[in-house]
Amino acid sequence: MSRLSLNTATINRADLATALDVTVKAGIPAVGLWRKPVQDVGLAEAAARVADSGLRVSSLCRGGFFTAVAGPVRQAALDDNRRAIEETATLAAAGAPGSAAVLVLVPGGLPPGDRDLPGARERVAEAVAELAPVAEAAGVTLALEPMHPIYAADRGVISTLGQALDIAEAVTGVGVVIDTFHVWWDPDLPRQIARAGRAGRIAGFQVGDWITPFPADALLARGLMGEGHIDFPAIVEQLDEAGYRGDIEVEIFRREIWDADPRVVAERVVDAFRVAVEG
Amino acid sequence: MSRLSLNTATINRADLATALDVTVKAGIPAVGLWRKPVQDVGLAEAAARVADSGLRVSSLCRGGFFTAVAGPVRQAALDDNRRAIEETATLAAAGAPGSAAVLVLVPGGLPPGDRDLPGARERVAEAVAELAPVAEAAGVTLALEPMHPIYAADRGVISTLGQALDIAEAVTGVGVVIDTFHVWWDPDLPRQIARAGRAGRIAGFQVGDWITPFPADALLARGLMGEGHIDFPAIVEQLDEAGYRGDIEVEIFRREIWDADPRVVAERVVDAFRVAVEG
Repeated sequence: MSRLSLNTATINRADLATALDVTVKAGIPAVGLWRKPVQDVGLAEAAARVADSGLRVSSLCRGGFFTAVAGPVRQAALDDNRRAIEETATLAAAGAPGSAAVLVLVPGGLPPGDRDLPGARERVAEAVAELAPVAEAAGVTLALEPMHPIYAADRGVISTLGQALDIAEAVTGVGVVIDTFHVWWDPDLPRQIARAGRAGRIAGFQVGDWITPFPADALLARGLMGEGHIDFPAIVEQLDEAGYRGDIEVEIFRREIWDADPRVVAERVVDAFRVAVEG
Repeated sequence: MSRLSLNTATINRADLATALDVTVKAGIPAVGLWRKPVQDVGLAEAAARVADSGLRVSSLCRGGFFTAVAGPVRQAALDDNRRAIEETATLAAAGAPGSAAVLVLVPGGLPPGDRDLPGARERVAEAVAELAPVAEAAGVTLALEPMHPIYAADRGVISTLGQALDIAEAVTGVGVVIDTFHVWWDPDLPRQIARAGRAGRIAGFQVGDWITPFPADALLARGLMGEGHIDFPAIVEQLDEAGYRGDIEVEIFRREIWDADPRVVAERVVDAFRVAVEG
């Protein structure tokens, strides 16, 4: 429980004040924030509320979406990532000791009509390299998120932990975030987790289960730990052996959970974490 | 066009006679057969009809589904695969010259309640090793199919071409079938296709597109070539450079296509093949 963080996407109907209150009342010590509820109240006000909550901040979600070819769309994406880096630094500074200034990067999908997947992947690497010194100057770690191959076309062209590490290791100050939902199937996962640990590149760890049958909306196909097919104790142990000691964020995109009372969801998250992750 | 094969799953409402007739009338020279329409008329009658059609047989779909732990379920699966090997030999012998005695193997998912993915994968390797001498004696090539990670839990625990090759190369007479829908996202794909070619292990090539948004039924999430995000000319070229000269099967699982007149579907397959695959 001391490492549990509630990613606010799990209770996405809640505004920032509610999200922080629900997290504290459930006895969860940390929170993973999303930019939208932060921007809804403004960064300064959000930072003040985070400070008042006494919670650690484990990450800000999210930057990225930088697969566009050179031009105004790409420039706007990079500018937005620069703002996200500043927000990350401010929120982490406002959080309780142990907060992590980590910005999660979702790579983005293929540009419309574009079938050049290697090209889009190359542009992700270029964007990460361009943003890395900006993040370093702000004391922020960029955390590239490999996404399940189901999202390769429309959401995240980086499909494996190994591929994310190839990009991260090419520059300083860039890590990866390992989300069980995205990587659990990968036969190379244990080896890549060990590699990430050796390289000191594990910037975040998120948990969510893979459920079947696969729901109608592919974006909402996640379950609480224990509801699906993922062997959480095995992956938690691999992260442990790799030396990761940071927070473990519970991030669940699922209609049924989004529709429930955030207080009830936070309690269910605590129960699922205890049973499936603590073992 | 000379290498085009219509996999009958694409016109799955059609009985065997209709499927063969539709294929011939569309000018398609080969057919990939499924066991169900064959069994509906009986193997001897099916072989006679295939012979009458003058079509090549490019594969029989499918064996596999052998992830169960030791016991009667596993034994039944292995017995069924032995029957499928015999069917493959008979049908390929009935097909026109150039027919391939290839049995496609879909690995199967995690047993109910089982979260041990490495264990299930190990049992696939064991089943393949047990069946390989049976297939070799019958002159049949087993073709293990790596499946998109979206199916890792419930349908196919072998998730990458590299993983399938690791299993295939451990025994003689076993190859892989490369289906664009399943492998297009893999950053390691070009290297693994080249490896498969060098090892002489490419036993089949199937094409189907990845479409978005992902449809409600994950099993029916495929499109005709050109409807989605896959760069077919690039993958076709990789297969070509790897020395693959066999048939190219069009296999599309999709409600809209299944509901259409098989004759119209066969014509659409020819058009899509010309545009997206021949380039």
